[in-house]
Amino acid sequence: MEHLKRLFNIDPWTLSTHSLHSEDMRLQESLTSIGNGYMGMRGNFEEGFSGDHHQGSYLAGVWYPDKTRVGWWKNGYPDYFGKVINAINFIALDIYINQEKIDLYTQDVEDFYQELDMKHGILTRHYTISIGDATVQLKFKRFLSLTIKELGVVQFSAKAIKGNPDIKIISKLDNYVHNEDSNYDDMFWDEIATTDHSITTRTIPNDFDIEQFTVTALMENHISVPATRKLHSSKLCVSETLNVTLEEGNSFTLNKYVVIVTSRDVAADEQYKSAKTLMDDVLTHSFEELEEMHKKEWEKRWELADVVIKGDEAAQQGIRFNLFQLFSTYYGEYARLNIGPKGFTGEKYGGATYWDTEAYAVPLYLALSDPSVTMNLLKYRHNQLPQAFHNAKQQGLKGALYPMVTFTGVECHNEWEITFEEIHRNGAIAYAIYNYTNYTGDTSYLEKEGLEVLTAISRFWADRVHYSKRHGKYMLHGVTGPNEYENNVNNNWYTNLIATWVLQYTLDNYETFKDSAIVTIDEDEKKHWQDIIDNMYYPTDEELGIFVQHDTFLDKDLKPVTELSAKDVPLNQNWSWDKVLRSCFIKQADVLQGLYFFNDQFSLEEKQRNFDFYEPMTVHESSLSPCIHSILAAELGMEEKAIEMYQRTARLDLDNYNNDTEDGLHITSMTGSWLAIVQGFAQMKTFNDSLSFAPFLPSQWDEYAFHINYRDRLLHITVNNQVNISLLKGEPLDITIYGKSHHLSKELNLPIQ
Amino acid sequence: MEHLKRLFNIDPWTLSTHSLHSEDMRLQESLTSIGNGYMGMRGNFEEGFSGDHHQGSYLAGVWYPDKTRVGWWKNGYPDYFGKVINAINFIALDIYINQEKIDLYTQDVEDFYQELDMKHGILTRHYTISIGDATVQLKFKRFLSLTIKELGVVQFSAKAIKGNPDIKIISKLDNYVHNEDSNYDDMFWDEIATTDHSITTRTIPNDFDIEQFTVTALMENHISVPATRKLHSSKLCVSETLNVTLEEGNSFTLNKYVVIVTSRDVAADEQYKSAKTLMDDVLTHSFEELEEMHKKEWEKRWELADVVIKGDEAAQQGIRFNLFQLFSTYYGEYARLNIGPKGFTGEKYGGATYWDTEAYAVPLYLALSDPSVTMNLLKYRHNQLPQAFHNAKQQGLKGALYPMVTFTGVECHNEWEITFEEIHRNGAIAYAIYNYTNYTGDTSYLEKEGLEVLTAISRFWADRVHYSKRHGKYMLHGVTGPNEYENNVNNNWYTNLIATWVLQYTLDNYETFKDSAIVTIDEDEKKHWQDIIDNMYYPTDEELGIFVQHDTFLDKDLKPVTELSAKDVPLNQNWSWDKVLRSCFIKQADVLQGLYFFNDQFSLEEKQRNFDFYEPMTVHESSLSPCIHSILAAELGMEEKAIEMYQRTARLDLDNYNNDTEDGLHITSMTGSWLAIVQGFAQMKTFNDSLSFAPFLPSQWDEYAFHINYRDRLLHITVNNQVNISLLKGEPLDITIYGKSHHLSKELNLPIQ
Repeated sequence: MEHLKRLFNIDPWTLSTHSLHSEDMRLQESLTSIGNGYMGMRGNFEEGFSGDHHQGSYLAGVWYPDKTRVGWWKNGYPDYFGKVINAINFIALDIYINQEKIDLYTQDVEDFYQELDMKHGILTRHYTISIGDATVQLKFKRFLSLTIKELGVVQFSAKAIKGNPDIKIISKLDNYVHNEDSNYDDMFWDEIATTDHSITTRTIPNDFDIEQFTVTALMENHISVPATRKLHSSKLCVSETLNVTLEEGNSFTLNKYVVIVTSRDVAADEQYKSAKTLMDDVLTHSFEELEEMHKKEWEKRWELADVVIKGDEAAQQGIRFNLFQLFSTYYGEYARLNIGPKGFTGEKYGGATYWDTEAYAVPLYLALSDPSVTMNLLKYRHNQLPQAFHNAKQQGLKGALYPMVTFTGVECHNEWEITFEEIHRNGAIAYAIYNYTNYTGDTSYLEKEGLEVLTAISRFWADRVHYSKRHGKYMLHGVTGPNEYENNVNNNWYTNLIATWVLQYTLDNYETFKDSAIVTIDEDEKKHWQDIIDNMYYPTDEELGIFVQHDTFLDKDLKPVTELSAKDVPLNQNWSWDKVLRSCFIKQADVLQGLYFFNDQFSLEEKQRNFDFYEPMTVHESSLSPCIHSILAAELGMEEKAIEMYQRTARLDLDNYNNDTEDGLHITSMTGSWLAIVQGFAQMKTFNDSLSFAPFLPSQWDEYAFHINYRDRLLHITVNNQVNISLLKGEPLDITIYGKSHHLSKELNLPIQ
Repeated sequence: MEHLKRLFNIDPWTLSTHSLHSEDMRLQESLTSIGNGYMGMRGNFEEGFSGDHHQGSYLAGVWYPDKTRVGWWKNGYPDYFGKVINAINFIALDIYINQEKIDLYTQDVEDFYQELDMKHGILTRHYTISIGDATVQLKFKRFLSLTIKELGVVQFSAKAIKGNPDIKIISKLDNYVHNEDSNYDDMFWDEIATTDHSITTRTIPNDFDIEQFTVTALMENHISVPATRKLHSSKLCVSETLNVTLEEGNSFTLNKYVVIVTSRDVAADEQYKSAKTLMDDVLTHSFEELEEMHKKEWEKRWELADVVIKGDEAAQQGIRFNLFQLFSTYYGEYARLNIGPKGFTGEKYGGATYWDTEAYAVPLYLALSDPSVTMNLLKYRHNQLPQAFHNAKQQGLKGALYPMVTFTGVECHNEWEITFEEIHRNGAIAYAIYNYTNYTGDTSYLEKEGLEVLTAISRFWADRVHYSKRHGKYMLHGVTGPNEYENNVNNNWYTNLIATWVLQYTLDNYETFKDSAIVTIDEDEKKHWQDIIDNMYYPTDEELGIFVQHDTFLDKDLKPVTELSAKDVPLNQNWSWDKVLRSCFIKQADVLQGLYFFNDQFSLEEKQRNFDFYEPMTVHESSLSPCIHSILAAELGMEEKAIEMYQRTARLDLDNYNNDTEDGLHITSMTGSWLAIVQGFAQMKTFNDSLSFAPFLPSQWDEYAFHINYRDRLLHITVNNQVNISLLKGEPLDITIYGKSHHLSKELNLPIQ
């Protein structure tokens, strides 16, 4: 793929470069993003950069409902489009050497080095610059604390290599920030109050009765040498200017501590006090102590989650980068939050929550974190059930429709073919309930909130189908399947399948738990659902022995991706939309997504025929596509294909595979590489309350190893020329390896097959 | 239909009312629009109106390319959306009586009366108002001259019924006007120059290399009594203030003459001079002379075009209103202009040209005006052939694609399901060439420009089809048919039909005219086109004996409109868009549009079966729908249905059928009532170089009569208890009446059948 772009060196634990990629600064910034679940930011330079770049800091759960902008209004569109908003730039340190402002876009520097330490969540940078007679070495280090979530720390140091430079630093809390995608270039922030070292701002009013968010940022600038100081404030910005004259050979360090509290946690009128108390607590620690505490937390996460790959450093770096960015975005602390598609790395897509969470993130969090993390994700949806009822009602339908994109549960998206039609998302919400329950064995959520959600989703499906008299079957017309390169199709096999599955799963569990259930499904309704289940139409082709993506898919001009030329791909950047839609090319797993979700219900032969039919037409232009293909290929023994697909997901952003990483990272799809290793290469399956593995070792690798958390146990799996499974914690259990049952009490060693 | 709203009295030649419809002012304004092809305006009050209303004046061919606004960009979308822009308000007369400003929204008046004289294109209004001790009668009269297109005239007179009022009139040229639908509430006009009595303005710059239009307006205010005068100018507005003290019983008259020239005709720096010369010429005539000249021109038009209906005044008013508004919009003077969907009556839809022109307006202009009018419409498209090539290229396709909406020929529309998919429009452009040639017998256009256009359109179709191996047929996937209540369907029967027809018509005429043709179609291309013609897929249902709207139409939940409840209709205002799309309900003739266009190629039985199948599911929520149904119903002898459909088209705006006339009139669909009478009730057909009639008389009517122009002859047709056809002008000819051939030399009289 000629467009691949790799800015950083291959290394198991770091992203590092000696190059300043001035013309690819957006990409460089995306890849060096850091976050702590509470806030995060792109890898912007503290001292600013006048070339094309994207300044971006984001606070979890702080957003703005912007007026829906469409060319032509359609009935049912939501009133507003919730967007992630760019928040206060609190790392800003304008730096002047002998009155000249430092700007790496216009000035040449030597010995540039930037490094993201993924093991510890620390971003550092240094370079040497000559201004007139003076030569100065500048160093930057920053982290967002995992121990004190409201805390961000920047350490800046300067050393006079030559000359006696005057150095001026303007340390700012700068809320004069714009979104890249605002409708009218409007600012989303009003200033409320400033003090010498703090600023309180509030999101501008909106017409949709959505809360305005208030944010207070407070800073302390500690410098290791005497300096003159001057305070200044202007609209939306407070700053402290520090002047130092540095003698040749000497150096100094500036530690900038910033505490940020928001109205998500602290009432507006108590924010300053709260921030002050937090800051006082912070300042009882030295920089080094704060750094050490933070590093320890990251190390703890890695102890549970690290995947070790021997023999392939690029792959090793890829999986760690993905886990690092995923955990930077979400580590399950808050039931009010979810996993935004760009995390804290960009604004594109807006909205905080997609079906990606349920389909791709839940399996990872189930295995790598406490069940309470996934439980929080389930509760998030249960809390938003009233809004899901609202969404269905907007379409004139019964039951609940979970949104395509949302902050509050109310649909924010505004393309009819997606908003109204990509309704398979509703199935994924139900599937996550199954996934949690089946994985953990804990039915407590399913029995109560789960059944409430399932019943509401089932009622949506039962109203959304129609009965085709001509076929004597129920159908789902006018849908968009997971393959968004076709819109408004009829009887998308995957959507029909998951709709029927939801109805069946709800009926089954209602039978089991009806005595304790908080919903009632009467006999007529049950009968009607059963009728839909029994008479759903599934497009299939007997001759080809495949499930057909939708009614008229086989009428297309079918040809493999290999017949495309280099100038065609990626299709979404080179073809007009109608050509994409008419083509047979598939953006992401569609029929195959169904074979992945309901893997235990299909024969290997069915999987093989469908894989062989659809995979060659799949362009994988969704970051969610390759992992599903990798997992299925692994199951089918197609090791080469499994590895090829793994490689596309593992380094999707690091190698800028889809040529869009400059907009931010593909956070939710970062689970894909982990899924490909664990559910693919190691063939971990958990269907029907059982745990099984059937690992293979990719030919380029010497070994891979990972942990999983399963039903109160911690397992460690190592795959090299043999398969080693160790029970690190918890009671013995039976597991299946290569189809054969084993009792795991401490350790199992089997030859690789 | 409970939502019908009839503001004006029934009368054969006027729209009149004694009511001020303060809460329906937009509707009242739409219906009292006037125009002269060069410019036009809504029925705004000269003295202003502070209630909800829509101030709107428009200049033909003066527009602005506004940035395309979409929620989500799709490759292939046009850069700009051309919109009709609101131009200078030149009728404005602020009126003060004893220092109090007249505003009919806040003040009570007596004896209000408003009248649109359709016979002469004159709008008048009067009322009596009491302010303090004074009672004054005010009268207004205005017209846009048909003899001097640049001239608008307002006559205002006041009579002191009681008291000695001071009357102040501020006569303005006010260019401080906004569009209702601008993206960012921006003004589209900059001031360039003012003099005492004139203002020159220019459309603001744009980013799309589209010309900026310059407009100069010059006024003269002639008052019949002594008055003090004061001139004033402010940004975008010049005004003259006249003060009069009127003694009880006395009156005065103010004649306001305005000349408007635009850079469409006169270079910017010559506009003032040109306007001045025109004004000097105007002022050699009295108001009465100018009015008389204007009235005579309207009378001439009616002599050729009037349709007389006896026994049904509502129908009589309806057809005259439609012809009046149609001719106010376009009378064929300019090959650069076309027929905008709202004419000079509103801004909705933007763009000047839709396929409505070719499909619905051409048949009327062919019959009611000189062939040169239609020729101008054909040339308009030929002139825009380069842009049509551009449009196809935008979609990665060969040949020419005429736009859905345009000013210049470049596509302006920005909904993928329309812009990229409603490609049947391309067929209508070709059909108009056939229609002109077949109607007039003149092949001169077809041979040269026509074949050039046809070949380019054919090349588009040949590239847009794909070959389905599974069916061994050519198909057109991803289209939107005339029924816009379904999008992105496969094998729309109508689209497939017209695509193949274009290929065949092009091949046939190329054979005939290839020696003189300016295009070359080589043997391979001919062979390929023939292959497409021979192997096109047409969805049909043998059992039902119908042509199927598209591949999966019959899988829908099929039911008649009669099963809808009152709260459902109009569907586009009451249902969410996805529900509309999934339903079986049809917005406008689709399969039936094909049976109308290619009427001679289908048997009566085929027409009957398809009409019986589709008509009951048709909601006629496009103003273009009822006339086609009326015509087919008439052919099928379903007189009651034909009349019902006629009634919906005849008074669509007068009775606000679709509840949207407040946005402006449905100009292009105004041809529908004429088509329903002439092609429906009278069954005029002109296929295959012959002329035939088979009239019936609607039971409520005593008589109807109309003229048609056909191949250098003028015919007058009267239908009452007999059919009278008179040849008023031109050579004798053979015509078919009720299927029997007759020789018409002077007059034919046959009993009605």
